[in-house]
Amino acid sequence: MGFEEMWHEIAPVGRSDSSGGYFRQPWTSAEGELRAWFAEAAIARGLRLETDPIGNQVAWWDAGTGPGVLTGSHLDSVLDGGAYDGPLGVVSALAAVDLLRERGVEPARPLGVSVFVEEEGSRFGLACLGSRLATGTLDWAQARELRDRDGVFLPDALAASGLGEGGRWAELDGVGCFVELHVEQGRDLVDRGAAVGVGSGIWPHGRYRFDFTGEANHAGTTRMEDRHDPMLSYAMTALAANKQARLAGQRATFGRVAVEPNGTNAVPSRVTAWLDARAESEGSLEALVEAISGQAGDRASRDGTALVVTPESVSGSVGFDADLASRIATDHAEGDWPVIPTAAGHDAGILAAAGVPTAMLFVRNPTGVSHSPDEHAETADCLVGVSALADTLERLLS
Amino acid sequence: MGFEEMWHEIAPVGRSDSSGGYFRQPWTSAEGELRAWFAEAAIARGLRLETDPIGNQVAWWDAGTGPGVLTGSHLDSVLDGGAYDGPLGVVSALAAVDLLRERGVEPARPLGVSVFVEEEGSRFGLACLGSRLATGTLDWAQARELRDRDGVFLPDALAASGLGEGGRWAELDGVGCFVELHVEQGRDLVDRGAAVGVGSGIWPHGRYRFDFTGEANHAGTTRMEDRHDPMLSYAMTALAANKQARLAGQRATFGRVAVEPNGTNAVPSRVTAWLDARAESEGSLEALVEAISGQAGDRASRDGTALVVTPESVSGSVGFDADLASRIATDHAEGDWPVIPTAAGHDAGILAAAGVPTAMLFVRNPTGVSHSPDEHAETADCLVGVSALADTLERLLS
Repeated sequence: MGFEEMWHEIAPVGRSDSSGGYFRQPWTSAEGELRAWFAEAAIARGLRLETDPIGNQVAWWDAGTGPGVLTGSHLDSVLDGGAYDGPLGVVSALAAVDLLRERGVEPARPLGVSVFVEEEGSRFGLACLGSRLATGTLDWAQARELRDRDGVFLPDALAASGLGEGGRWAELDGVGCFVELHVEQGRDLVDRGAAVGVGSGIWPHGRYRFDFTGEANHAGTTRMEDRHDPMLSYAMTALAANKQARLAGQRATFGRVAVEPNGTNAVPSRVTAWLDARAESEGSLEALVEAISGQAGDRASRDGTALVVTPESVSGSVGFDADLASRIATDHAEGDWPVIPTAAGHDAGILAAAGVPTAMLFVRNPTGVSHSPDEHAETADCLVGVSALADTLERLLS
Repeated sequence: MGFEEMWHEIAPVGRSDSSGGYFRQPWTSAEGELRAWFAEAAIARGLRLETDPIGNQVAWWDAGTGPGVLTGSHLDSVLDGGAYDGPLGVVSALAAVDLLRERGVEPARPLGVSVFVEEEGSRFGLACLGSRLATGTLDWAQARELRDRDGVFLPDALAASGLGEGGRWAELDGVGCFVELHVEQGRDLVDRGAAVGVGSGIWPHGRYRFDFTGEANHAGTTRMEDRHDPMLSYAMTALAANKQARLAGQRATFGRVAVEPNGTNAVPSRVTAWLDARAESEGSLEALVEAISGQAGDRASRDGTALVVTPESVSGSVGFDADLASRIATDHAEGDWPVIPTAAGHDAGILAAAGVPTAMLFVRNPTGVSHSPDEHAETADCLVGVSALADTLERLLS
C-alpha cells in the first residue's frame, strides 16, 4: 500500500464534518483508531511492533547490527487541527520503508518507525508528553499530576484507554539517531522554491499561565470606577504581548482563555489565559516573557486585580546535529537541500536534548498555514518528501 | 415559619462548596428543588398555587374582589451568583403574607405571590424569559429556537424537567399592579442611610454578541505580520468598551467570551464575546453601542478579521408607575422612603412594559456587590424590607 492509499485510509479519522479540521486528542477514540491502524500497517510489513505502557509505538525492521536509526512523528492533533502535522511524518516513514525495499537496500543496522503520543499537548497542556516520558526527560511522578480540561488525571485517562503508567522506555536505548519528517509550518521553502529542506534547530519556547483575579459583580449596576475587572487586565496583556513580539521579530500568542463565571451580566471574578512565546535565543525569550509579565502586572495594579504568572512548560534552544544535517543535505543530484530553523516544538527536540543525534526534514507548505483545517501540502511535494526520507535513511543505514 | 427560617431552609440549595456562590440555573435540579419548596410553602399557607407550562408560579390568597395585587421575584441565579438577588423578594413576599395575617388585615382584593423563571437569562441568554413569555411580550415561536451553551433547545430543557410549551399566561390578566422587592445592586441606600427605597425606573440595557472571525494558525511558526488574529480585535474592543462607558458615566462589560479552537499553541479562528451595555436613555445606549461597534470594526479591519454584531436582547427605558411609587414611598412614621433608579433589569420592567402598574422596593446592600458570592444584606435590613413590603401591600389591598 503506497503513500496515497495510506493517506486516504486515515483521512476520515477524527475529522470534523463542520470545519474539516481534525480532533485527534490523545487517548480518545480517534487517536486510538490511529494507533491500531499503525499497528496493522507495521505488522502487514513484517515489522516487529513494540508499544510502551502509555501508547508510544516503534515498529522495527530488524536488520544488520549496531545502534538503530529511528524515524517517525506523531498521530495526535491540536483541537481542530490540520491533516499533515504529525501524520505526514508517520505515513512517509512507512512509505520510505517500502521504497527502500523496492530499491533492494539491505540495512547495515536496524530501522525503527516511531509514533510518540500527545506531541501537541492539546489534552494535558504539556507538549511532547510521550517522548518526554520515554526519554526520561519527565518523571512519571510529575506527569501523573497532570489533568485535562475536564479535570481527568493522566493516569485515569490512560486506564480508560486500557493503558498504564509511563516512564523511561528502554526501547530507545538502542537508537543511534532520529530523523523526523514534518510539514513546514511557515513559508521558508516556498520563498526558496524547494520541495524539501533540512532543520537546523528549534527556537526556545514556552507556555505560561496568566491568572488574573478580580471581583465578580453585577455588570449593570456596578459603576465602572468601582470595578476590579480582570478582563481588562487580560485584554491589555494580549495587546501588549502582540506588540512586544512584533517589534522584536519574535512570537507571542494568547490563543486560550477561561473566564469565571463567564456570564454576560457579571463582571468576571477571574480570567486565566495562556501565553505561547518563542524567540531565537533563550535570553531573548526570557526578556520577552518578562516584558509582557511586567506590563500585565502594571495594568493589574491599575485595575485593582491580582496577577500570578506560572510557566507550564519551557523548552530551551535545540540545535540539531550539524554533521548529521550536513550529511543529509549535501551532494544530491539536484543540488543541496536548504537548511532552515523552525519555531515549532517537536519530539525531535526532546530526543536531541536527551543526547540522540537528531535531524528533521521539512516538506513545503504552500500557504504556511498550520494548526488549522487549512494546513496543506501538495501530493507531489509529499512524494518528494518520501523519496528524500528514503535517500536520507539509505545514507544513515549504510 | 418566619423569614429567617425560610432563608435558612433554602440556603444550601445550589450552593457551591468551593466559592460559596449559587448555581441555580433554570430547569436544573437546584432550581427544581426551589420550585418544589415554593409550592410547599404556598400550600402550607393555604394559598392556591397556579403553575404555567414552563414553571412560572403564582400562589393566590383569594380574598375580596377586583384586580389582584401581585408581589414576588425569582429563584434562579447567575452562574456563581449571590443568595439575595431574587430569593429575597420571594421569601419576603411569603413573610409579608404572614405579617398581614398577624396584623389581621382583610384584603379588599386578591393577593398573589409570584415566581418567574429564568429572570437572569443565565442559561438561554435572554433575561426575564419567564415573564416575557407569560406577558406575551415574547412569542413561543421565537423562544423555542433558543439554545443553551451545550446546544440544548429550550423545548428539550423544559421536557427534561417534565414541563411543556410556554406562551401568554391568562393568570396574569387579573393582576391590577405588581410590586417586586429586591436587594439593591449598588450603594445608593448606603449613601442615603436608608434600609429601604422605592424604584423610579430601569435604565435601558441590552446584550450584543460580537463575533470576530480570523484565521487559525500555528502560534509558533506564523510571523506576527502574517496573522489574522481575532483575539487582538476582541482585546481592543473590551478596552474600548470600558473607556467609552467610563467617560460617559454609563456601563459596558464584556464578561463572557468563547474562543475557537481555544488551544494554547493555535492562533484562534474565532472569538465570540458578549457586550452588556446600559445607559440612562435609549439614545445614549444606542450611541454607546455604536461607538464601541465602530471602534471594534476599525480594529478588525486593521487585524484582517471580520466582525458581526448581533443584538440578542435590548430592553427600552422603563419608568415605574409614578403615582404608585409616591403612594408607597410617602407618609411613613419614619419619613418618606427614598426613590432611586436602577441599572439592572427585572421582571418588574417586563410587567411595566406590558401595561401593569408596577413598583419596586429595594433593600440596602452594604457593599453594593451583586452577582457574586459576596452579595449581602443584613438580616435586620431584610426584616425592615419584609415590614415595608407588608405596609405597601396593606395600602394596595385596602
